[in-house]
Amino acid sequence: MATGKVFLFQWLLLLAFLSVLVLAKSHNLPGFRHVRRNLRENDTIISSSLQTFYYNQTLDHFNFQPQSFATFQQRYMIDSTHWGGADKNAPIFVFLGLEESLDESLKFVGFLSENAPRFKALIVYIEHRFYGKSVPFVTQEEALKNETLRGYFNSAQALADYAEVLVYLKKKLSATYSPIIVIGASYGGMLATWFRLKYPHIAVGALASSAPLLYLDEIVPQDAFFNTIANDFVESSESCGETIMASWDEIHKLASRHDGLSILSQKFKTCQKLNDVSELLTYLKLVYYLVVTLDTPPTYPLDVLCRGIDGAKNVIDVLDRIVSGLIALEGEKSCYVNITEMQLYYDQFSGSNWQMCSDWVMTINFDNDATVPPPPFNLERYVKQCESFYGVPPRPHWMTTYFGGHDMKLVLKRFGSNIIFTNGLRDPWSGGGILKHISDSLVAVVTKNGTHALDLFKAEKSDPDWLVKQRNTSLKIIKGWIKKYYEDLRELNLK
Amino acid sequence: MATGKVFLFQWLLLLAFLSVLVLAKSHNLPGFRHVRRNLRENDTIISSSLQTFYYNQTLDHFNFQPQSFATFQQRYMIDSTHWGGADKNAPIFVFLGLEESLDESLKFVGFLSENAPRFKALIVYIEHRFYGKSVPFVTQEEALKNETLRGYFNSAQALADYAEVLVYLKKKLSATYSPIIVIGASYGGMLATWFRLKYPHIAVGALASSAPLLYLDEIVPQDAFFNTIANDFVESSESCGETIMASWDEIHKLASRHDGLSILSQKFKTCQKLNDVSELLTYLKLVYYLVVTLDTPPTYPLDVLCRGIDGAKNVIDVLDRIVSGLIALEGEKSCYVNITEMQLYYDQFSGSNWQMCSDWVMTINFDNDATVPPPPFNLERYVKQCESFYGVPPRPHWMTTYFGGHDMKLVLKRFGSNIIFTNGLRDPWSGGGILKHISDSLVAVVTKNGTHALDLFKAEKSDPDWLVKQRNTSLKIIKGWIKKYYEDLRELNLK
Repeated sequence: MATGKVFLFQWLLLLAFLSVLVLAKSHNLPGFRHVRRNLRENDTIISSSLQTFYYNQTLDHFNFQPQSFATFQQRYMIDSTHWGGADKNAPIFVFLGLEESLDESLKFVGFLSENAPRFKALIVYIEHRFYGKSVPFVTQEEALKNETLRGYFNSAQALADYAEVLVYLKKKLSATYSPIIVIGASYGGMLATWFRLKYPHIAVGALASSAPLLYLDEIVPQDAFFNTIANDFVESSESCGETIMASWDEIHKLASRHDGLSILSQKFKTCQKLNDVSELLTYLKLVYYLVVTLDTPPTYPLDVLCRGIDGAKNVIDVLDRIVSGLIALEGEKSCYVNITEMQLYYDQFSGSNWQMCSDWVMTINFDNDATVPPPPFNLERYVKQCESFYGVPPRPHWMTTYFGGHDMKLVLKRFGSNIIFTNGLRDPWSGGGILKHISDSLVAVVTKNGTHALDLFKAEKSDPDWLVKQRNTSLKIIKGWIKKYYEDLRELNLK
Repeated sequence: MATGKVFLFQWLLLLAFLSVLVLAKSHNLPGFRHVRRNLRENDTIISSSLQTFYYNQTLDHFNFQPQSFATFQQRYMIDSTHWGGADKNAPIFVFLGLEESLDESLKFVGFLSENAPRFKALIVYIEHRFYGKSVPFVTQEEALKNETLRGYFNSAQALADYAEVLVYLKKKLSATYSPIIVIGASYGGMLATWFRLKYPHIAVGALASSAPLLYLDEIVPQDAFFNTIANDFVESSESCGETIMASWDEIHKLASRHDGLSILSQKFKTCQKLNDVSELLTYLKLVYYLVVTLDTPPTYPLDVLCRGIDGAKNVIDVLDRIVSGLIALEGEKSCYVNITEMQLYYDQFSGSNWQMCSDWVMTINFDNDATVPPPPFNLERYVKQCESFYGVPPRPHWMTTYFGGHDMKLVLKRFGSNIIFTNGLRDPWSGGGILKHISDSLVAVVTKNGTHALDLFKAEKSDPDWLVKQRNTSLKIIKGWIKKYYEDLRELNLK
């Protein structure tokens, strides 16, 4: 395996923010059969009332060299069906794009379209620079190979893009006093938080769903991530977690045998012959991570996997039990471990891979067997690996220098307002989330059983009460912000 | 006169933020004899307890191209004589450099050194990138001619520099919980405001003296600037203002004569023969602007000028009266209008000239006879002139997109805290200042008779009560912030 690939595999779990969901489906990775119906079936419901536009975006907001003035086409989409209009200062709900094409996000995000009508809100989706149709000048692949072009690909520039688009839109719509609420999921939730903090003159409030703000720069210990995964397995079935724990040793033991790879290939009915044990390990880690991340009502794929594993209790061979789990997830198939598809799947994440080697540096060590507590995060090694891959080192302290993150309560108790941090405690990313109120208007809305960004997913009739309640709590808070804002407008005699 | 010079002259008044004071002295420009004693006499009191350091600063914080990682030496100075120490979480007072060398700032700023002892505060002065000894790689002149290098010279980068230096210093001093108060004058006051708003995790509060935040992007009408100058003249002496008003026509009339320039040269006893009437006009505009800006207790040079002009009431020729004013300001000299010195003086402002053609775009038309209300600000023309001079256009809406500025009360009423905006109403820049409280902790401290950034000047025994009171009000507020911050530390069980 080339160094590049090994390096890529190291980020295994980190790669998988949200795009994991839709991309896992298109690559037929396990677990997808069991996720939310609307994700399974309604792949392409992009509302016909959604119009697509392109904004002439500034390449570099923070530099005044001639080349910084170049502009590229940034995609955004608008649904004005329910908007109350500029003359009524009706609100604007804005989805801040994350590390994927807007087309992908639109497949799972339902929060804006479902709730805009009762707020008479305009809906805006903005794509993140260097993703989807918003890559400057060339393809994403080419952009990422170009050391000059990819330099412009970072969070601060992306936030400034959103600011420019929204200032432009408000002007174009004469909607000076329409309150903007920004909404984001995962990395997009981090962006929403920072947008409200850095651009309070543009956004009145932010809903940040599953934003792992505290995994940066060792603000919280990395253990939280793995402990959550381990707990999730224990909660589903203790014996299932134990079987998986035992399987790592078995795999390593077999792999060390002369004919090990061939035996493993047969045992797991791999779609391609294994060339290296790391292929199998990576695949299994991905499956476990996917079922945890996708472990949403009503089907709970983690339980499906564990029922499969536990159902084979009388089978003596640990690895055969794991295979039973895979069969339970995927049904009877001619092969189970599809390395080619997995590699194609990982190729989709080249954008976030770069971001993790530039400004996002999550201080979590993912280079271990899933469900096993990792060795300490080694910053020096991380920096070296990024540098050998991209030629420049990441800036691991820049995010906390620019955005803060340490001692959030001390810093924000008397500064800032109107941010909702939602999290589900079964999500390993929640360990890096804001789980407690910071102040009266910087609030945490947490569910015990929620998973990654679940509250922004399209609603289903079968949604459990706790999920409906979480969404309603957020909506009630947003309603309160808008009410206060209108009062302020009146008090200040602004139209 | 070359286009460049005409262009330069257009910015006449804008050029003169604070450096005007010390630079006017070194170029023997009028009015200086009459300003504050400590500015006249104590040119070089740089405390011996002040130590100079250099920080390896990142050239481009917002880009990840290889060249962005280059570092340059940024100068900062520290006085730790009175610091209570990291173990006591004693405060840190930080002066954020403005558009001049720190050496210049240190000649007039007394606020930090005079008040640090009673706060047991550490004092830090940080120089702004591209000024003084903090110019990357080459001289300022060379940097400004280099279209690549000068691209990195802007406000957002400067704020990020301050953030990096302060994060580094806190770490080096193990002063994690020492509260930082940032302090700035004029453009430096804008930076202090923005620093508290953008980097609340680094600075607990900001004192922004005479920060003309609202002159950007037509937030307030430009009239405020000229109305203040006109009012200042009227308050000193109505007839003096009328004489100056009348003089413009006289000069233009004379200049249109065949031998006009020669007559004007004689009348004004110019040190060099005039080549163009604009030289004289520019010189006089500068004098009037200087006496207004320098019109500080105890000597009030504006009054000195006007007494000179009014004292020649019986002189029929309006221009002779103006000359009497110049003589009153400067005493008997062999010549009065020194164009060469003025041009050398203006050359000092090449840095701020670039800044005004990149991100600072004050929407004030300075291209008129001083004391005469200006024609409307013409953005299109401004952009064209900058572009023809520098090859790239300014970004006139970027500052308000990035930092805000419109509807400050609406935006900040429920967001942000701990900023003091001080202003003196005789300062023409005060028209662009925050003159009313925004909230309980975003407060305005205004004096009727104050001038530009007077509250940060070295104190004098003869200072009037209103000035002493203004300083004490700010100090009391800062004390309150620090007290609350210590309470928060205890409540959160941080050391």
